[in-house]
Amino acid sequence: MGIFVDEVYLFGEAAKLKLTKYELGGKGYGLVEMTSMGLPVPPGMVITTKMCNKFFEKKRLWASMRAKVAAKLRSVEKETGREFGNPDNPLLVSVRSGAPFSMPGMMDTVLNLGMNDRVAESLTTRKDMRFAYDTYRRFLQLFGSIVMDVERAKFESILNEEKFRKGAKTDAELNGDSMRSVAFKYKNLIKRETGRDAPQEPQEQLFMAIESIFKSWWNKRATEYRRLYNISDKLGTAVNIVAMVYGNYDPKSGTGVAFTRDPSTGEHRFYGEVLINAQGEDVVAGIRTPLHVDKLREVLPDAYSELVRTAKTLEKHFRDMQDIEFTIESGRFYMLQTRNAKRTPQAAVKVAVDMVREGLISKKEALLRIEPEQLEKLFHKQIDRRRGLTPFAKGLPASPGATYGKIVLTDAEAVSARERNEHVILVRPETTPEDISGIAASDGILTSRGGMTSHAAVVTRGMGKPCVVGAEGIAIDEKAMTVTAGTTKLRAGDVVTIDGSDGTVYIGEAPLIEPKLTGDVSTVLKWVDGYRRLGIRANADTPAMVKKAMENGAEGIGLARTERMFNSPERLDIVQKMILADTPQQRQRYLEMIKPMQKGDFKEMFKLAGGKPFTIRLLDLPLHEFLPKLDTILPEVTELRITKKGSTELKEKERVLSKVMQLREQNPMMGQRGVRLSLMYKEIYEMQVEAMVEAAIELLGKSKVSLEIMVSQVAIAAEFAAAKEIINATAERVFKKTGKRIEYKVGTMIETPRAALTAGELAKVAEFFSFGTNDLTQGTFAFSRDDIEAKLMPFYISNKILGENPFSSIDVEGVGKLVAMCSREGKKENRKLKVGVCGEHGGDPKSIEFFNTTAVDYVSMSPYRVPVARLAAARAAIEGEKRSTA
Amino acid sequence: MGIFVDEVYLFGEAAKLKLTKYELGGKGYGLVEMTSMGLPVPPGMVITTKMCNKFFEKKRLWASMRAKVAAKLRSVEKETGREFGNPDNPLLVSVRSGAPFSMPGMMDTVLNLGMNDRVAESLTTRKDMRFAYDTYRRFLQLFGSIVMDVERAKFESILNEEKFRKGAKTDAELNGDSMRSVAFKYKNLIKRETGRDAPQEPQEQLFMAIESIFKSWWNKRATEYRRLYNISDKLGTAVNIVAMVYGNYDPKSGTGVAFTRDPSTGEHRFYGEVLINAQGEDVVAGIRTPLHVDKLREVLPDAYSELVRTAKTLEKHFRDMQDIEFTIESGRFYMLQTRNAKRTPQAAVKVAVDMVREGLISKKEALLRIEPEQLEKLFHKQIDRRRGLTPFAKGLPASPGATYGKIVLTDAEAVSARERNEHVILVRPETTPEDISGIAASDGILTSRGGMTSHAAVVTRGMGKPCVVGAEGIAIDEKAMTVTAGTTKLRAGDVVTIDGSDGTVYIGEAPLIEPKLTGDVSTVLKWVDGYRRLGIRANADTPAMVKKAMENGAEGIGLARTERMFNSPERLDIVQKMILADTPQQRQRYLEMIKPMQKGDFKEMFKLAGGKPFTIRLLDLPLHEFLPKLDTILPEVTELRITKKGSTELKEKERVLSKVMQLREQNPMMGQRGVRLSLMYKEIYEMQVEAMVEAAIELLGKSKVSLEIMVSQVAIAAEFAAAKEIINATAERVFKKTGKRIEYKVGTMIETPRAALTAGELAKVAEFFSFGTNDLTQGTFAFSRDDIEAKLMPFYISNKILGENPFSSIDVEGVGKLVAMCSREGKKENRKLKVGVCGEHGGDPKSIEFFNTTAVDYVSMSPYRVPVARLAAARAAIEGEKRSTA
Repeated sequence: MGIFVDEVYLFGEAAKLKLTKYELGGKGYGLVEMTSMGLPVPPGMVITTKMCNKFFEKKRLWASMRAKVAAKLRSVEKETGREFGNPDNPLLVSVRSGAPFSMPGMMDTVLNLGMNDRVAESLTTRKDMRFAYDTYRRFLQLFGSIVMDVERAKFESILNEEKFRKGAKTDAELNGDSMRSVAFKYKNLIKRETGRDAPQEPQEQLFMAIESIFKSWWNKRATEYRRLYNISDKLGTAVNIVAMVYGNYDPKSGTGVAFTRDPSTGEHRFYGEVLINAQGEDVVAGIRTPLHVDKLREVLPDAYSELVRTAKTLEKHFRDMQDIEFTIESGRFYMLQTRNAKRTPQAAVKVAVDMVREGLISKKEALLRIEPEQLEKLFHKQIDRRRGLTPFAKGLPASPGATYGKIVLTDAEAVSARERNEHVILVRPETTPEDISGIAASDGILTSRGGMTSHAAVVTRGMGKPCVVGAEGIAIDEKAMTVTAGTTKLRAGDVVTIDGSDGTVYIGEAPLIEPKLTGDVSTVLKWVDGYRRLGIRANADTPAMVKKAMENGAEGIGLARTERMFNSPERLDIVQKMILADTPQQRQRYLEMIKPMQKGDFKEMFKLAGGKPFTIRLLDLPLHEFLPKLDTILPEVTELRITKKGSTELKEKERVLSKVMQLREQNPMMGQRGVRLSLMYKEIYEMQVEAMVEAAIELLGKSKVSLEIMVSQVAIAAEFAAAKEIINATAERVFKKTGKRIEYKVGTMIETPRAALTAGELAKVAEFFSFGTNDLTQGTFAFSRDDIEAKLMPFYISNKILGENPFSSIDVEGVGKLVAMCSREGKKENRKLKVGVCGEHGGDPKSIEFFNTTAVDYVSMSPYRVPVARLAAARAAIEGEKRSTA
Repeated sequence: MGIFVDEVYLFGEAAKLKLTKYELGGKGYGLVEMTSMGLPVPPGMVITTKMCNKFFEKKRLWASMRAKVAAKLRSVEKETGREFGNPDNPLLVSVRSGAPFSMPGMMDTVLNLGMNDRVAESLTTRKDMRFAYDTYRRFLQLFGSIVMDVERAKFESILNEEKFRKGAKTDAELNGDSMRSVAFKYKNLIKRETGRDAPQEPQEQLFMAIESIFKSWWNKRATEYRRLYNISDKLGTAVNIVAMVYGNYDPKSGTGVAFTRDPSTGEHRFYGEVLINAQGEDVVAGIRTPLHVDKLREVLPDAYSELVRTAKTLEKHFRDMQDIEFTIESGRFYMLQTRNAKRTPQAAVKVAVDMVREGLISKKEALLRIEPEQLEKLFHKQIDRRRGLTPFAKGLPASPGATYGKIVLTDAEAVSARERNEHVILVRPETTPEDISGIAASDGILTSRGGMTSHAAVVTRGMGKPCVVGAEGIAIDEKAMTVTAGTTKLRAGDVVTIDGSDGTVYIGEAPLIEPKLTGDVSTVLKWVDGYRRLGIRANADTPAMVKKAMENGAEGIGLARTERMFNSPERLDIVQKMILADTPQQRQRYLEMIKPMQKGDFKEMFKLAGGKPFTIRLLDLPLHEFLPKLDTILPEVTELRITKKGSTELKEKERVLSKVMQLREQNPMMGQRGVRLSLMYKEIYEMQVEAMVEAAIELLGKSKVSLEIMVSQVAIAAEFAAAKEIINATAERVFKKTGKRIEYKVGTMIETPRAALTAGELAKVAEFFSFGTNDLTQGTFAFSRDDIEAKLMPFYISNKILGENPFSSIDVEGVGKLVAMCSREGKKENRKLKVGVCGEHGGDPKSIEFFNTTAVDYVSMSPYRVPVARLAAARAAIEGEKRSTA
């Protein structure tokens, strides 16, 4: 883009300069390319995107640009043999916007520009009145509504009135007189509404239209769209001025849009619609029912075969499925637009695979054509159509997929509904480990509090179950059994649909699409592993999750959270007692009860992992999550103190309350967690290490185990070293007792900024690092996710303080800087150090792209995200390769 | 220290090699230096410190070392004309440890080594029985207790028994027979207690003593001491073997310790004690009352004048006040030890200033002689003697100085006690802004919860009032009006003394020393400003604090916390209502009420600062601190729901509760604070900026104002930019309204890791940075100070996971890395950027030393710490200069 870009180019000129989409806009680029390919494109010109910004500076069109447009217009006149503004041989043009990325809300198209009273009169004589005034009234309608801001509906109602008066069903049935009358009424309408006449002078029309297009760059909808898709405001739009060809010229004329393949399924068959004797906007307006494009074969066979030939040529040239617009004027075929077609996830996969088979693209290119997010959708149920659905609330998309069910407010109701085979959505303010049976029994979860790492979010992602959290707009009244959002009150038993992929909740049962896993998907997933540099592991806490991870192609388990293994009611009870223990002896006793359970879990999971690396994180107890909430127990005790003074019930509750008060922390996220707690109560680590080492030893000779033991919440190298000492001493005791040894590695999570900053020191003692990017993001920003994500984040994003949620996609400048620095420094100190990412970003395609540029060796994510991550990792590697060879 | 260090050196040999304290130990170094100066030191040798570690490897003495000791001993024999082990002309030696730093708990001294039965017999013949057996029993007592581990008291009781039997008051009154009998009883005691005889063979005695010294390196007390003072375990101790001279030889003999100046006041007069006809340990043991050293002038005038001459020589040589040991044998004077003397804070200042006046040292050297912590003590009341005090509890030293008073448990009691002119200590679980009147009325504060940045800690430091927080061992029962620690129960009205400098609480009234600010202190403070590179500002929230800051020499205000200005009951009420406001209009109304108060504060403070830079931090509301606590309001509401259903009282409380629940955060430290809150409620910033800008404008022509406006909790450059836009727009509105302008700067705190990591981006928009090192430490470690400091920190420090509390002294490896990186990157981007530190580390001498090595321009701290910081900054600069020219 370093070359000098002039203001205006004829299509033919631009083709020679090899200008890109960034200068020509998407539409212009397509027209220029097609012109250079020799396809039948009407002559025309592009005003480049750079002029858009210049216009915003100058606030008006400037002389040199006007002059150039006029000059190029003379070339178009020459080529068409017509003359702009000459009533006897008029050149009409279409004026269309064209930004580098297609953008809804931008001003679109003014057709038939150059029409005026005299041209219409003359055309009436030279062709016929109907064509003349149909063309004129089309111009007035588009110019009036788009450029002069007259409400579109007012034009429609004039036309409808005329049809009603004449008993015509479609405008095709209106004759020349009617069209003339409509055109005059349009002129009056414009005068009445704007106080001025629609300009008669074609040049004036043209420059007004150009200005209008530039101004529409700042349309509310366009601006919003750019914000949403992170498109720079600086790009600007181009303007295309193209000689008109008339789909409304006669019955051998027509206009159509088509896809070179089926955009819904990806099947290799022509797909599109044609309207005979019509202009472009009629297709969109849905005034007449269009024909399937195949019908054209019968109606206009020559045009049809040219269309088919052109489509093939285009696919070969652009090496992708195209979305095209064409017009046929008196049997002659013209191309008006081509672009890479939007497609469904299913189509994206099929088209990519087919095109490889057809020899059109390479496998690498095919992978770049499939967005990881598209692939993900194939693995979950999705809402089919949203039109007609009644939104109820909006929360955070905590676990993807859509589902529906009756509202239940308690775990017990969920369980009993499940027994009756009913679909249910469990709606809670937030969930705790105590709710695990309720979560298991439900089809989906909706909570009013909590962020993307709240209990509900983490557990459901693990289960692959849809979940929406932090829907702050809803109020749950358990006694009244209602859920209220704004003025809408739902009752337990009412049906809602939740979409965990975007966080919306709808009233009633929405139509869902089942996941579609075709052979093409497995083909794609076979390809990806050949290209990626990053290893892919999964976060799995249960045998079911390990199994799913292996099925989905994980190369190991990057994070097995032992505290999640306590998520069953009978275990939870023991864990609570362990926490409430008053003496180390008591605690030891409960630990002894937990140990066989953990050992059993480990054995089962080790077997399923079949010798692949298996990283177990030692207890990272968020103690408060395993105890009653203060705002539950405190009112209970207060009430008992008044109503049941001296009762044993009160005494027991008071004991729990005093423990809750004692363990309560001001900022639990930065409190006594992980290694901090475990160094003080080392019997917990000892129990866990015994359980995992014994499990591995009992499998010796039966199943290979590649054990990696991970310590959490480390901020100081000495902290990790102390933990490692406990681990090694415990393992040695087991070896001595059993007379058998196993190999294992000991490593640390990197989830505090200080751990990242002191990577060199840590790498001296740790055998692997694993970034806990959730907590690292929290610490680096000092953002408490639970407090910030639902309240502050939307405000920050809509005010452009943040480009996107740093908990969804890694913050490259801050957190990413730490990740890059730490992985580099760590490996400098310890060449054998393995570095992974096990935070949520491990499964996010954009983040994977970033990790691919660092010294990170592998990423680990929910088993359900594994396929997506494999694709994302491959794409990152291919993109990286492209950049480095560019 | 790169040179080869041999195992053993004679004093004369070592002097030529210029060995340092690190090889010779402190004691050895003194002896060697004195030998080289030609002072009368008995001949002897040093076993170097390196041998200590070698001994721990080999676990025993090795042949080459033994041989070298024996060889050097022959030189000593030659010089003294005596022979080790020869009963007819015996050489006796003292064996003394000597680490590079003096270390209590190390084995100290064995005198008269070489004594045995035959030597005693022979000495009886050649001198007299009393000298012979006094010397022998002294040897047995020291060797027996120190080397052979017999309880010291058992020797004492044998000697006391003999004195009792003979009716002697002191051992001087015992004759030769008694001494002989005591010596035999000592021998029997050793045999009985250890099962073996004290060795007769002098060589055996010697090597046993040497081993004993090495082993004592790992004594519990020595180890503990090293840990406490951060002395490396690797240093090791030297062993000094010195030919005995006999202070117990005859009445013209004696032994003494002296200081070359008064170690308590610093006055330039000889200070020390002498015992006639005695050996060294008699002075320490306090068996006889020693003479003041001046008395020696009368008793042994020649020795006295030699002592005075020697003292002068030593001060000139070592250029510091010395602490010496000497012995006189039959009128002949010997030096046995010299070292730089320990001294009180007052003495440190006086000696340093005097020595500059005497031309002995330079001003720079003088400053290096005064520890900043010593200077600080001169500014606060201190506990005079701790012996005899009954400790009650231990907490964190939140605000320095000692004070006493009656225990009060409520603000009201504190206020009414103050009206009766009583001294009171306010004891609370923790304090909130609501307690401000109680805090103001009290002499000191004691809390059972909270850390060094809790409300009580911050407020009292600002007031210069002693405070102990987080005394977790105490239980406060407000209803019973008791405070209990362990089994000790105190009642309201009982007197306690708190020491805010070390966190201890004593029962009863302890004797206190008033702060002593002499002219020498101002002299020192005049000097310091000439040497320091770092600017010194103060953190001040009230006019009184600004005044104190200026008095203490602050060069500006580095942090004025606007939220602290609400700390008076009538203001607090309005602030609470502002927070509880349901609509922006309501909030605006309360802000309007706050504005004139803030403006008044600002004007008054601006005037006091007299044009020096004045940094105001915009509201950093820790909202929860300004509202009732959940665990207070929740039981209240629960109770009212049962007892006063439907009452207006209940309704009002329920409203407050619902607001508390709504504003409650899981991790308020990482929640919606500072800029995050203020971007959403920009009317708060607007009110504050109006208040400060109007205040400055109203002072135009009367008082210069150098305003710096600071934004807190920034993590993202765009966040700061948005805040700056609000500030600038508001200021412009005031300028327009008043028709007058002022200059001001806008800057950001650096208190999130991400702000530090993205310094370059921030420096593009900020005019200054100010490190909030408290929060930065919290974020970097993910340590919630309130949760971690009292519970985990002591465990981590005693287990050497942390060298020291990173909230007291900056963590150089982690947080310091961020500070260094950020200040460097910031200035690289913006050459005019000013960088300060306004966290608590700004006033910590060790941290100041570190900041001096970075691109930080100034530090800011409590007004009371300003003098200390000025000294610390000067010392840091001088030390830095020394290092860079070394």
